[in-house]
Amino acid sequence: MKDLLIENASIVDVNSGSILEGSNILISNNIITGINVKKECPQKINLNGQLVMPGLINAHTHAAMTLLRSYSDDLPLMDWLTKHIWPKEAQIINPETVYIGTLIACYEMAKNGITTFVDMYFYEDMAARAAEEIGLRALIGEGVLSIPTPHAKGKLQGIENTKKLIKRYKDNELISPIVAPHAPYTCSDDLLKELACIAIREDVPLHIHLSESEKEFLDMKKEKKLTPTEYLESLGIFEAKVLAAHANYLTDSDISILKRHNVGIAHCPESNAKLASGICPLIKLFDSGINVSLGTDGAASNNNLDILGEMDFALKLQKISNKNPQALKAINALQMATSMGARAIFKEDIGSIDVGKKADFLVIDRENPSLLPGHNIAADLVYSATPDCILSVCVNGKWIIKDKEPQFDKDKIIKLAKDIMKRYFS
Amino acid sequence: MKDLLIENASIVDVNSGSILEGSNILISNNIITGINVKKECPQKINLNGQLVMPGLINAHTHAAMTLLRSYSDDLPLMDWLTKHIWPKEAQIINPETVYIGTLIACYEMAKNGITTFVDMYFYEDMAARAAEEIGLRALIGEGVLSIPTPHAKGKLQGIENTKKLIKRYKDNELISPIVAPHAPYTCSDDLLKELACIAIREDVPLHIHLSESEKEFLDMKKEKKLTPTEYLESLGIFEAKVLAAHANYLTDSDISILKRHNVGIAHCPESNAKLASGICPLIKLFDSGINVSLGTDGAASNNNLDILGEMDFALKLQKISNKNPQALKAINALQMATSMGARAIFKEDIGSIDVGKKADFLVIDRENPSLLPGHNIAADLVYSATPDCILSVCVNGKWIIKDKEPQFDKDKIIKLAKDIMKRYFS
Repeated sequence: MKDLLIENASIVDVNSGSILEGSNILISNNIITGINVKKECPQKINLNGQLVMPGLINAHTHAAMTLLRSYSDDLPLMDWLTKHIWPKEAQIINPETVYIGTLIACYEMAKNGITTFVDMYFYEDMAARAAEEIGLRALIGEGVLSIPTPHAKGKLQGIENTKKLIKRYKDNELISPIVAPHAPYTCSDDLLKELACIAIREDVPLHIHLSESEKEFLDMKKEKKLTPTEYLESLGIFEAKVLAAHANYLTDSDISILKRHNVGIAHCPESNAKLASGICPLIKLFDSGINVSLGTDGAASNNNLDILGEMDFALKLQKISNKNPQALKAINALQMATSMGARAIFKEDIGSIDVGKKADFLVIDRENPSLLPGHNIAADLVYSATPDCILSVCVNGKWIIKDKEPQFDKDKIIKLAKDIMKRYFS
Repeated sequence: MKDLLIENASIVDVNSGSILEGSNILISNNIITGINVKKECPQKINLNGQLVMPGLINAHTHAAMTLLRSYSDDLPLMDWLTKHIWPKEAQIINPETVYIGTLIACYEMAKNGITTFVDMYFYEDMAARAAEEIGLRALIGEGVLSIPTPHAKGKLQGIENTKKLIKRYKDNELISPIVAPHAPYTCSDDLLKELACIAIREDVPLHIHLSESEKEFLDMKKEKKLTPTEYLESLGIFEAKVLAAHANYLTDSDISILKRHNVGIAHCPESNAKLASGICPLIKLFDSGINVSLGTDGAASNNNLDILGEMDFALKLQKISNKNPQALKAINALQMATSMGARAIFKEDIGSIDVGKKADFLVIDRENPSLLPGHNIAADLVYSATPDCILSVCVNGKWIIKDKEPQFDKDKIIKLAKDIMKRYFS
């Protein structure tokens, strides 16, 4: 689209939790260039008062793992990983299957109102290809480990893959490359330091799993006499722009370290709960002023890619586990999924409906019965909305779902998913 | 409909968690009369392999409280109730608003695949009217307390309302009357006993809140030297067919009492979490063989009426709070919402796709991206499905949603919801 004027929109202001009724939004190419401006525009849409909110951010996922959704569930983490997930990944993961798995994920995320996702997996050029095809914004990081992966015999190849990804996508409008060492316990000191150097030099975020399980926390304390957070600090990793996923086991000192280095957190409450890994100390993170975003993790461990659900789950889990119904408020969850989430993933050009931001937004049906009668928009979006409330999804000024109809080839994706089942699982 | 043959359905067997592919289902009037029978039938539908599963059961709600959805959130229980909910209820609750609030709830429940709900509120004849209008199956109980309510100056009127409800709906196809003393701490001994007598005499279930909060549990222990469960047993209440909501605080002895009397539990994990009331000891209930169903509670405390979400939340909360990823499996949640749920609410004629059961079922889009690629149907329905996976909803042999289109007057409901906002909240 060139210029588009969206008329009679009810804009959800995620900073105040209020609604700007009867607004218009001017979009020029892929940017929001005006709100409530007077301008004639040949291309117009009248939303008849429907809600417009910023697109949701999924700050941590392994998109292609949709291929293993419901393949193995309700097992202890290490059994699940070593006996089921890893052996199957070794069999099935290749460039083609990463492309197909990521297409399925992008289709699901699009219809669930996710407009930006942060991915860590293998053959990430193929994940980028799938995201571009659907039209989703993505931060794409090749998972690098010191041990062999489906896409790298050793760490050198992992580093090479990362450099290639950065070179290829450095100036892409939808895809941003990131550096993605898997975790402190799967990467050597040298590897972590080298990847951090690349992230700093190229000025791209570094995404890493951090303190997901109690075992990881205790093992690191035993081996290095440092918490995983202290360990990363000691190596200088936090000199990069770091987005840390999970962060369930943190000392107060760890939290100070994270704050000092402006580390963003990708909080993944549903995956952490399903695997019984732990509960992130969200209230302390908020109290310290750390930027927190929400992630689904992969569909093999969640098993959905639904940030609306994650907002609801995150707050209810904090309230019950802290025995405090006042522990965080609806607006906090809404911000984790949008404006604060954008800061956490170091993408300040998305996350709210404001002039100068990318045109990434959702049209929400405020007459969906889940949102009636409509006393408080933040509470309604966090505790009540489900994906069927989403009418349209716009990313970078382009509709990817319009009036519930995907604007990409969904039949192709369904067919590819069925083919995968025949070829690899029958 | 007279006879209807549903062809090429993929029936979800909620007992085994398997799919009966390529099945046909014969429905005569409102009953499933054949599965995979050879019969010619003038009225046919071909589902092209889409999934058919039993309708979901919402075993505990206060439907009309949709009127107060997002009116007040993120507060401690007693502040929330005494400063916000009760004063507003006193202002707005009357026969007309109960009818409108229940209509909104029924619309939401219908599109979320709930075909049966158990309700406890005031002016329940109006709740019944709304349920019948939408076409939902409902167990309807007038909430009776020893203190005045919006519908009863004292307990005598509450008892009278209950008797009228039973008389009017005893032989209704969709609406079943129940007896609904509010809770052990809001009803006197005499009132509880009298209501239990009515339930036994009329052979209708008795629905009551039980051991929702720690305060309730400790107060009762202090005052009566009995747990709430022991107290109800001591009064002979469990001689009735009792469905107890919440049951968060239970001793091992309480669990034996509940099992001995075949008490059904309406487990409400999301509402209990949001209010930080407590976590039901679900694993122990399962181990003891007690029938457990799932409830949303009212939309003022949840804030949604979505049993798909409740299945997911229930299991993830048990896993993380018990620090055990094997704590309950997907199939357990699916059964709480269907077959076991039906036993818990004493409605054995619903809850599965079997000959002789009422024709209450959902058509699910197995090509929805949330369900791709489809390794395990129980896990997919519990952990991944959201309301947008539901294509059609049939209750008692009648479509109430067909290919996503409500078969009732949804525009009327939206208009009534808007009117309520203007009249009572502006």
